[in-house]
Amino acid sequence: MHDLSTFSKNCSMKLDSHPLPDLRINGQRLWQALIDLAQIGATAKGGVCRLALSDLDRQGRDMVTQWGREAGMTVTLDQIGNVFMRRPGRNPDLPPIMTGSHIDTQPTGGKFDGNYGVLAGLEVVRCLNDHGIETEAPIEVAFWTNEEGSRFVPVMMGSGVFAGAFSLEHAYQARDQDGKSVREELERIGYLGTEVPGQHPIGAYFETHIEQGPVLEDAGVTIGVVTGVLGIRWFDCTVMGMEAHAGPTPMPLRRDALQVATTLMQAVVAVAQQYAPEGRGTVGMVQVHPNSRNVIPGRVKFSIDLRHPTDAGVDAMADKVKALAQRLQEQTGQSIQIELVSSYPAQAFHAECAQAVTDAAQHLGHSHMQVVSGAGHDAVYTARLAPSGMIFIPCKDGISHNEIEDAKPEHIAAGCNVLLHAMLAKAGVVRNELNVT
Amino acid sequence: MHDLSTFSKNCSMKLDSHPLPDLRINGQRLWQALIDLAQIGATAKGGVCRLALSDLDRQGRDMVTQWGREAGMTVTLDQIGNVFMRRPGRNPDLPPIMTGSHIDTQPTGGKFDGNYGVLAGLEVVRCLNDHGIETEAPIEVAFWTNEEGSRFVPVMMGSGVFAGAFSLEHAYQARDQDGKSVREELERIGYLGTEVPGQHPIGAYFETHIEQGPVLEDAGVTIGVVTGVLGIRWFDCTVMGMEAHAGPTPMPLRRDALQVATTLMQAVVAVAQQYAPEGRGTVGMVQVHPNSRNVIPGRVKFSIDLRHPTDAGVDAMADKVKALAQRLQEQTGQSIQIELVSSYPAQAFHAECAQAVTDAAQHLGHSHMQVVSGAGHDAVYTARLAPSGMIFIPCKDGISHNEIEDAKPEHIAAGCNVLLHAMLAKAGVVRNELNVT
Repeated sequence: MHDLSTFSKNCSMKLDSHPLPDLRINGQRLWQALIDLAQIGATAKGGVCRLALSDLDRQGRDMVTQWGREAGMTVTLDQIGNVFMRRPGRNPDLPPIMTGSHIDTQPTGGKFDGNYGVLAGLEVVRCLNDHGIETEAPIEVAFWTNEEGSRFVPVMMGSGVFAGAFSLEHAYQARDQDGKSVREELERIGYLGTEVPGQHPIGAYFETHIEQGPVLEDAGVTIGVVTGVLGIRWFDCTVMGMEAHAGPTPMPLRRDALQVATTLMQAVVAVAQQYAPEGRGTVGMVQVHPNSRNVIPGRVKFSIDLRHPTDAGVDAMADKVKALAQRLQEQTGQSIQIELVSSYPAQAFHAECAQAVTDAAQHLGHSHMQVVSGAGHDAVYTARLAPSGMIFIPCKDGISHNEIEDAKPEHIAAGCNVLLHAMLAKAGVVRNELNVT
Repeated sequence: MHDLSTFSKNCSMKLDSHPLPDLRINGQRLWQALIDLAQIGATAKGGVCRLALSDLDRQGRDMVTQWGREAGMTVTLDQIGNVFMRRPGRNPDLPPIMTGSHIDTQPTGGKFDGNYGVLAGLEVVRCLNDHGIETEAPIEVAFWTNEEGSRFVPVMMGSGVFAGAFSLEHAYQARDQDGKSVREELERIGYLGTEVPGQHPIGAYFETHIEQGPVLEDAGVTIGVVTGVLGIRWFDCTVMGMEAHAGPTPMPLRRDALQVATTLMQAVVAVAQQYAPEGRGTVGMVQVHPNSRNVIPGRVKFSIDLRHPTDAGVDAMADKVKALAQRLQEQTGQSIQIELVSSYPAQAFHAECAQAVTDAAQHLGHSHMQVVSGAGHDAVYTARLAPSGMIFIPCKDGISHNEIEDAKPEHIAAGCNVLLHAMLAKAGVVRNELNVT
């Protein structure tokens, strides 16, 4: 895959952190844009269902690109349907300072996941337009194809192809439940572009997003400075036992698959607690066979989800769980198989981007704290190509991927102002045009 | 319900334990009867599917009653379809010494469960006929309707109505998945009798059965002298948590329903181990919600099956589990509900019947040991009305309710010989007809 690191070197010039200290976005306009976009695919329960590359996705894409063009931006598409909306800078040779996210949603998704990151970028541009501000580097607002992965696997498809995590051909061949392929659907909805994915310079990338977790709300903090995304390992664990009647089988003669499995399930959590504060361990899925009230389980299969800010950390967690499984197998004589089903590497964001976010929050007087992202985002893939960072804001009860997903207008505005100032610090403001009071 | 205890008093006369010490049943004939009956409803995997009150059940009933009539027995039916086949004794006023079991099977059942108890009784009668032996008390071979409960609930229906555990009307109204009622099906297959259930004297009742557990095989013992049937309590336990994303939710902010549930699941087994050797605790069924790999479980429901030879014991076990649940609820703030869904009282068998079985095994030179039955049997209900006991023989790997259920011909014969001698000891042999060498 094409390496864009040369582009980002151009962006290492010394810039003023707060070139326009009093500049603020229009929170009301941003909120309205979120509400308007949420009408496309609106669900009865107040959420949004706008699956990637569906007719509704096309309508959403059309609405956002129309808004972009109205804001003076040019729109380009790449071959995986990623959309880049560009506001020129004074120096066209500088790589753009980019922001973005995605506008596809979960089947029972909310209004904010992804959409907020895209429309916050649009609001930054509208704000610059309002005040006639020219930046040195161009500003770009991107939205990436099929971040959710609900209709087509893998998730984060557009940014993944862009970063070379997997091939365009692999993505094209993904099919939905009706057998429709990504390529067919891109073509059908008119978003199959010509630009080669990745052949698009990025000076720095910022992504604004609701946290999708409870940390900021619990701490009463407005801005999360995201230092990285946790590495993830997904395993399937299968414990064998001997199916037998619950009544006639004395305890010492049993080979109960569930009793061994529950010991391991508890270990998954205990290991995560040993790797505090950012280690995570979850058993989310359990299948018991034959799952009958009066039969001792003969087979239990369950999922293990381990996460840690470093790959070494998450692998060490996995090793501890596997070592216990090995000991249990020897002690009980019951077979325990642990199979890796997915692995997502940890991704640290760039210190200079985290610093820009911190500086902006500080300048704006918003409470802020460093957080990690437990979930993947498009910024994970842009970080392979260019300095990248994320800005989190609280969401109600930490709930996302749910129609009741909610966020406060003041947090929505705060995150966008942080984005504005972080981007301006990176893009640079053309001094002779400073006209903001 | 009518109390039959007066009948059994008649049977307290002093009898000779081994009136015919050299008498033996015909093991080959008994084995062949088992194989022949297993043809009705035979499955491809070598098992039997002969659901209660089905056409196949009718064919099985017709075959067994024909064999009974050919052996000189008279057949009566009661209103729940229980069948009593009677070989007269010298004294018609004495209550019969009865044996029996059931011939309905599980959907994927075996050849021996139930059928062995009925055909062993038939073989006892055939053996007495072979040798022209007259007993003082009549001998009866019963088979009880719908012991398995696979098609109609409750289980042990025929013997339960007979003993007054529930009403005839309640049983009649039970319907299968197609909406057909017990009464309709009894009538349709021609086994709706006129005798009022329970209006049938019993002097003593013996039931021969495969163990359906691993104890005898594990101990290398041929005959289990069953001292009683474990009391059973079935509970549903529901633990609530807070559904949340596995990635963004730090360990200390979680309310993981599964972690609390697994603690309780392990306690169910630990408590049973405290009540060794006969306490039993099983979690057989688990439902996790939403059961998704990367979602912290918000609700877990699981079954608890507790068993003990005494009701006080099984209730004490339940109290221990409930006390832990209460403590966990207080510690975690997560709701834990434990609901009783079924309760079957413990039933001790009668010492005089257990002694008769022990004496017979001893006399015949078969290894024997006292065991409890973890599963319910028709003898549980007859024990409410008359002295009752059971004879267990080993089954392969302790497996039952399975098409691969198996037992050794020598064990089949041994259990039947024990039954013969136990019954003769109770029924008494008419001395002037002793003609066995």
